[in-house]
Amino acid sequence: MNTAEARGRFAAARVARLATSDASGHPHLVPIVFAVWGETIYSAVDAKPKRTTALSRLANVAANPAVAVLVDHYDDEDWNELWWVRADGTGRVLVPEEPEACGAVALLAERYPQHRESPPTGPVLAVDVTRWSGWAAR
Amino acid sequence: MNTAEARGRFAAARVARLATSDASGHPHLVPIVFAVWGETIYSAVDAKPKRTTALSRLANVAANPAVAVLVDHYDDEDWNELWWVRADGTGRVLVPEEPEACGAVALLAERYPQHRESPPTGPVLAVDVTRWSGWAAR
Repeated sequence: MNTAEARGRFAAARVARLATSDASGHPHLVPIVFAVWGETIYSAVDAKPKRTTALSRLANVAANPAVAVLVDHYDDEDWNELWWVRADGTGRVLVPEEPEACGAVALLAERYPQHRESPPTGPVLAVDVTRWSGWAAR
Repeated sequence: MNTAEARGRFAAARVARLATSDASGHPHLVPIVFAVWGETIYSAVDAKPKRTTALSRLANVAANPAVAVLVDHYDDEDWNELWWVRADGTGRVLVPEEPEACGAVALLAERYPQHRESPPTGPVLAVDVTRWSGWAAR
């Protein structure tokens, strides 16, 4: 799969999974909703989810900015429909007051009605993608 | 979510995402089909997928056995239906000849008709789970 197709499939998906790793190399993994702008993936930390979990991914990025984000399609009936795209990149934590964080929250609100109803108020995670890669069964 | 419920939701899912990390702490992320037996998650490396990708996860586990595996449910219409379960554990790479690898391939064949038609012939990844944790919107 070429870069443009990988990026296109990724940007159109509704949910992704974010892998970070702490300073000692222990991976951490959570699902995220997100928006892509240029070569950056944005996700926001909501007030609702478990505080400790919200903080793990941010603490990991602060200690080790290497991040991977995955979108995949699974079809139990037909494995010819399987595909995935991975974005490898560098994470940055934005405080809610930053203009870039404000822009990211607006992008998320555009994509997700739930974010319009109750906008996330926590930090924003930006992932600057250095490589889009993917695989499709056909 | 308690451990029993987390483990039960995880074991019933059809697809998961595996995060490994190389020696320098770069996370790697791929979707997997899997089977749970006791406190171990098994997945197999198939002949078909891209060879280099298949090898990355195994090379990472050999260099750094800390692994996270995630199952999640996303519902675009109703965020009250969202949940996820994460298994944190230690990875081991089994060569296909080992009895444990043979048992794992049989478990996978039981769960996935596609694995019965063309059994995976590569190494098996075993993840010994040290912690099941999860979150549900309600």
